[in-house]
Amino acid sequence: MPTIPYIENFSDWVDSFSYHHSITVRFSETDAFGHLNNTNVFVYFEEARIEFLKTLGLMERWMRQESESILVTGDLQCDYLKQVFFDEKLDIYVKVATIGRTSADIHYMAKNEEGDVCFTGRGRIVQVSKQTNRSIAWDDAVKVALTGESIASK
Amino acid sequence: MPTIPYIENFSDWVDSFSYHHSITVRFSETDAFGHLNNTNVFVYFEEARIEFLKTLGLMERWMRQESESILVTGDLQCDYLKQVFFDEKLDIYVKVATIGRTSADIHYMAKNEEGDVCFTGRGRIVQVSKQTNRSIAWDDAVKVALTGESIASK
Amino acid sequence: MPTIPYIENFSDWVDSFSYHHSITVRFSETDAFGHLNNTNVFVYFEEARIEFLKTLGLMERWMRQESESILVTGDLQCDYLKQVFFDEKLDIYVKVATIGRTSADIHYMAKNEEGDVCFTGRGRIVQVSKQTNRSIAWDDAVKVALTGESIASK
Amino acid sequence: MPTIPYIENFSDWVDSFSYHHSITVRFSETDAFGHLNNTNVFVYFEEARIEFLKTLGLMERWMRQESESILVTGDLQCDYLKQVFFDEKLDIYVKVATIGRTSADIHYMAKNEEGDVCFTGRGRIVQVSKQTNRSIAWDDAVKVALTGESIASK
Repeated sequence: MPTIPYIENFSDWVDSFSYHHSITVRFSETDAFGHLNNTNVFVYFEEARIEFLKTLGLMERWMRQESESILVTGDLQCDYLKQVFFDEKLDIYVKVATIGRTSADIHYMAKNEEGDVCFTGRGRIVQVSKQTNRSIAWDDAVKVALTGESIASK
Repeated sequence: MPTIPYIENFSDWVDSFSYHHSITVRFSETDAFGHLNNTNVFVYFEEARIEFLKTLGLMERWMRQESESILVTGDLQCDYLKQVFFDEKLDIYVKVATIGRTSADIHYMAKNEEGDVCFTGRGRIVQVSKQTNRSIAWDDAVKVALTGESIASK
Repeated sequence: MPTIPYIENFSDWVDSFSYHHSITVRFSETDAFGHLNNTNVFVYFEEARIEFLKTLGLMERWMRQESESILVTGDLQCDYLKQVFFDEKLDIYVKVATIGRTSADIHYMAKNEEGDVCFTGRGRIVQVSKQTNRSIAWDDAVKVALTGESIASK
Repeated sequence: MPTIPYIENFSDWVDSFSYHHSITVRFSETDAFGHLNNTNVFVYFEEARIEFLKTLGLMERWMRQESESILVTGDLQCDYLKQVFFDEKLDIYVKVATIGRTSADIHYMAKNEEGDVCFTGRGRIVQVSKQTNRSIAWDDAVKVALTGESIASK
């Protein structure tokens, strides 16, 4: 098993997810090496993260024109375990790993139809003010929604 | 020579451009057929169109937060004449073909380093109100800038 | 109704499609004007076209490593009728409009959940030799599959 | 200064780069939050990495049709320090941090025109066999080129 800094025990980690969102690799997402271009996994992470936040009822608040805050990416990373090709159907699993005052650590895992983990990832999302660009503490409703999810997936 | 609806005489048309913006094909823009994916020519058109409008001093007005109008794409098309590959340097030529009351017809031509025309295109840009989504007539300053360019490239 | 060169009667044309493929607008496909960036409609066209060809049993032949030919885009165009925003679900309709010796004219239509046509398009796909880059006549099996679809959607 | 796992001393690290490649943020790379979408930094990393490898005379060997190996991404990560907007010109710095038997650790830094570091990153590139998908040891010429660069940028 690969050594990945944010994964203690690989098989426990794989089992810790419950939510997933499915995507199919587009032809325009492949490259001249014949496989999925490395940059597109982050597009899948974003799509799956947003779908996940929507199921928690959280996304809408940051999408409104009049919202004071937006959600930004603090950091983001991916470990590529297995090449992926055109037309593969991938389940992108998402979970809240930890929650801070103004940010949350989100984990990602992509499984193909054979059940192989093709790539894993993590990244911190941060709530920031549109005015000041500074981070803003989660309010209680967000914290409860994210925490519930965090506990549920343990 | 190919028959392209918006081109009367191919060599006259090739000679009618003066402005161009250069791009280099990114690896992430190729696909598993080993060449530039067809969807990315429109990314190049947009980049070259914006650079062109910037040289006319026109782009800034639509990018300001407080601007009442934005510039949208009415229609857009491309004719692919020659396959393009990773790392090719392309000059994307842009010109104003005709100007209407609220829109302008923009033509595009991509030439590689051998001087071959690899693809051609055209599309209508339209000024629309952010509030109503309806088209808004160009003001005189815009018209003069676009017309001057249109005359200059004849 | 807009005047679109490849559409004779708009409502007849809308009714002439049977196949569609659904997509949801990704956040990464929007731009700073707050809407779907104009370049991404062609990504949707490609995805829907490939799914359509797969249902006809045709796509696989061009994806094999040992295939002598690939499918390329001869030309492509889009008419934008209505702005599209993040998270909208669009049905991308696809049909074969006409078939030539080595190419076929494909039509596209995007409908949102309210049933509004947001954009329309068309483009020619061409079978070309990997060796010579020249167009190759469709063999009978392809022609029958494409023609059947063409007749069915009239 | 932010705590970033792969950076010991931030200002020493900033000074350790010599090579950079410049890009300008495309409008199609922004999103509805008005800034550069988080997924596109990895497109910049890839473009800059390839340009960097080209200056070392290394890229060509992996791009040839008959090459036995390709270069893949083992892992990749980005830390976002400052929002980036349309039309900003960024210098993407690249250096070899460490070299292994079959892989190398590459570091990235993006500076805007004011000299602010907007995002940093790193990732492992791995040489793999096209046939077996297993990693292949660098040959001496590659090792010398990568090592020279590694030493030069210390």
